[in-house]
Amino acid sequence: MAHVAFVRRGCPVVLPMAFGRDGDRMFLHGSTGAGAFLASRDGLDVSVAVTHLDGLVFARSAFDSSMNYRSAVIFGRAVLVPAEDKQDALRAVTEHLVPGRWDEVRPPTPKELAATTVLVLALDEVSVKVRAGGPGDDPDDGEDRSVWAGVVPMRTVVGVPERSPLTDPALPLPPSVTSLL
Amino acid sequence: MAHVAFVRRGCPVVLPMAFGRDGDRMFLHGSTGAGAFLASRDGLDVSVAVTHLDGLVFARSAFDSSMNYRSAVIFGRAVLVPAEDKQDALRAVTEHLVPGRWDEVRPPTPKELAATTVLVLALDEVSVKVRAGGPGDDPDDGEDRSVWAGVVPMRTVVGVPERSPLTDPALPLPPSVTSLL
Repeated sequence: MAHVAFVRRGCPVVLPMAFGRDGDRMFLHGSTGAGAFLASRDGLDVSVAVTHLDGLVFARSAFDSSMNYRSAVIFGRAVLVPAEDKQDALRAVTEHLVPGRWDEVRPPTPKELAATTVLVLALDEVSVKVRAGGPGDDPDDGEDRSVWAGVVPMRTVVGVPERSPLTDPALPLPPSVTSLL
Repeated sequence: MAHVAFVRRGCPVVLPMAFGRDGDRMFLHGSTGAGAFLASRDGLDVSVAVTHLDGLVFARSAFDSSMNYRSAVIFGRAVLVPAEDKQDALRAVTEHLVPGRWDEVRPPTPKELAATTVLVLALDEVSVKVRAGGPGDDPDDGEDRSVWAGVVPMRTVVGVPERSPLTDPALPLPPSVTSLL
């Protein structure tokens, strides 16, 4: 998930959105509401953050306590994806979220495509930050060694798939789901 | 983790930051770099998003595919926490990330406090969105029932704690760590 910031009437707005990537282009796809904010013929200056939290860093002081993470912050002008490229852009978003799913489901109808706003942003200006590893641990730092220090890793996992009421229990899980498990 | 958006020289910027909460106030604490952007005597208009991804929604069409999530987007003016309140604000941030950790570690020195920027934001204007449950599943929707539909839940979990090199292996895990496991 990406967090997309833009300026509306002089004030900052940030919204969570789904995204996809194709090489040096990023596609952004939000709810209709979010799309309406963002839709503009001339494009819209945005800043987009994608962040993964990898762990909690337990130092022996409050000051040195930290988090391990990877973040990318992109700056640029997002523009509407033209109608003829919209399907490919949506495929990129779906494939980013759930690889393989696009070819398992019904593609969008022309009406559905028309109701969908997708933006494209060039990955030209990107700031990447990574914090990894343990807390600073220096024999001469004067900290109290009776305090446990280290890292507690964090990750996102998937749970047990829950079929919808109208899905036949005999239907096997599709490859896009089993590959997540 | 929160994503904090603000306007710098007319352009949007979004940054990941740690946060804490005390009733109807939110505290924001970022790296020194982020803090420097944000530090301003008059305060700074921000939009802050906190988002939890709860699952992937597998519909039978690309158009109805979705995500389950909870998000809060806050709008307001963040102001610097005055020196005398900074320690309490940092405690709120630490306790939000790792309940119980604050009392296990050395509190900040006056020098460390001076080097730390914390902002406070009133939770007056907040937009909350939740999407939960399965895909739309209507007997008359005309979708192909041979396609599996349902939800794959997602959650964030912690892994095995890794002690730092200078942490005595005989030292038991502190309550703040064991309560996460």
